[in-house]
Amino acid sequence: MTGMSAAPGPGRPRDPDVDRRIARAALDVFGDTGWAGFAMEVVARRAGIGKATLYLRWTSKEALLTHALNTGLVRVADVDTGTLRGDLVELAAQILGLYGGPSSRAALRLTLEAGTIPGVAENYHAMREAQFHAARAIVRRGIDRGELPASVSITMLLDTLAGGAMMHALSTPREKQEDPAAHAQRLVDFLLQGTFTRVDQP
Amino acid sequence: MTGMSAAPGPGRPRDPDVDRRIARAALDVFGDTGWAGFAMEVVARRAGIGKATLYLRWTSKEALLTHALNTGLVRVADVDTGTLRGDLVELAAQILGLYGGPSSRAALRLTLEAGTIPGVAENYHAMREAQFHAARAIVRRGIDRGELPASVSITMLLDTLAGGAMMHALSTPREKQEDPAAHAQRLVDFLLQGTFTRVDQP
Repeated sequence: MTGMSAAPGPGRPRDPDVDRRIARAALDVFGDTGWAGFAMEVVARRAGIGKATLYLRWTSKEALLTHALNTGLVRVADVDTGTLRGDLVELAAQILGLYGGPSSRAALRLTLEAGTIPGVAENYHAMREAQFHAARAIVRRGIDRGELPASVSITMLLDTLAGGAMMHALSTPREKQEDPAAHAQRLVDFLLQGTFTRVDQP
Repeated sequence: MTGMSAAPGPGRPRDPDVDRRIARAALDVFGDTGWAGFAMEVVARRAGIGKATLYLRWTSKEALLTHALNTGLVRVADVDTGTLRGDLVELAAQILGLYGGPSSRAALRLTLEAGTIPGVAENYHAMREAQFHAARAIVRRGIDRGELPASVSITMLLDTLAGGAMMHALSTPREKQEDPAAHAQRLVDFLLQGTFTRVDQP
């Protein structure tokens, strides 16, 4: 640990820009190569910082990846706009941003590999559980406010919302994708209104 | 090529069971390790056959993986039951089977890696285009038969159908998943009927 006197010590505030670059680089490396190619040196190089600077912040690659995933991926828990439609549009926009944005490959890798990465599997499972419960709470609040019938299948609504957003982001060519906010609104209205009824209703 | 006289020559019919075992093993290896770990020796070992037997059928790992993907993944093009609901249920069941079945990891890997695998990228792109057109044809036939209004967003219906099936298969614990055929019907009815209208209609 000699020769590192110029690096910020634990008592000095961290540079948030460096933190962001590290998290971004960690997600990029994980997305490109998966856990098999995830190494501190590679992340440091991608972030344009020294290995020592990285080790000052994170002592293991498990902790580094966990942090990057926690800060870089979807934050469903924060959604509460006051209306069902508003909450679902925000949720859909988050998912469109995740799978259509720079963390897309990392999110897909995680689906494939999370279960096999030591120290990450438990955190991933807990994150998924938290997202699952937050998303269900959104729909339950809508039912409580009378915005949806109590008989609605919450799981089906959330599967088609999240899956429809993911599918759009992954399969529609970038140049054909509309503005994520506009697409999120169209998706939610489509699910809340259905298709058949437009023919069947008088 | 000496010492292979016991192997079937090009003029003899192939054993379809061996072909199936090879395709299964190829999808398993690709799902587990991706293209980085995909090698003829590894597939032969997983299939429980000799390397020579494998090389008699496939001269390159690109050709082997392409064949396995073509035979093992979704076959949307074959769907035409005569009704929109019937076709969509069949399509949803295929996707539930794909992401909930033994080829799930291979299908996810493909989404991540297809673009970077030599010889596979073009085939994957063509397969996706064919699936895309076959799925759109299903909905167009439904519109022609008056089963859906012409104003429906075909893309939105297919994104939510395919995405909803994929999300269910990937995120619902196996022990909580209902029979795929029953779930496919519930999913299609949910999308065709909507949720809001049950409250809003008198």
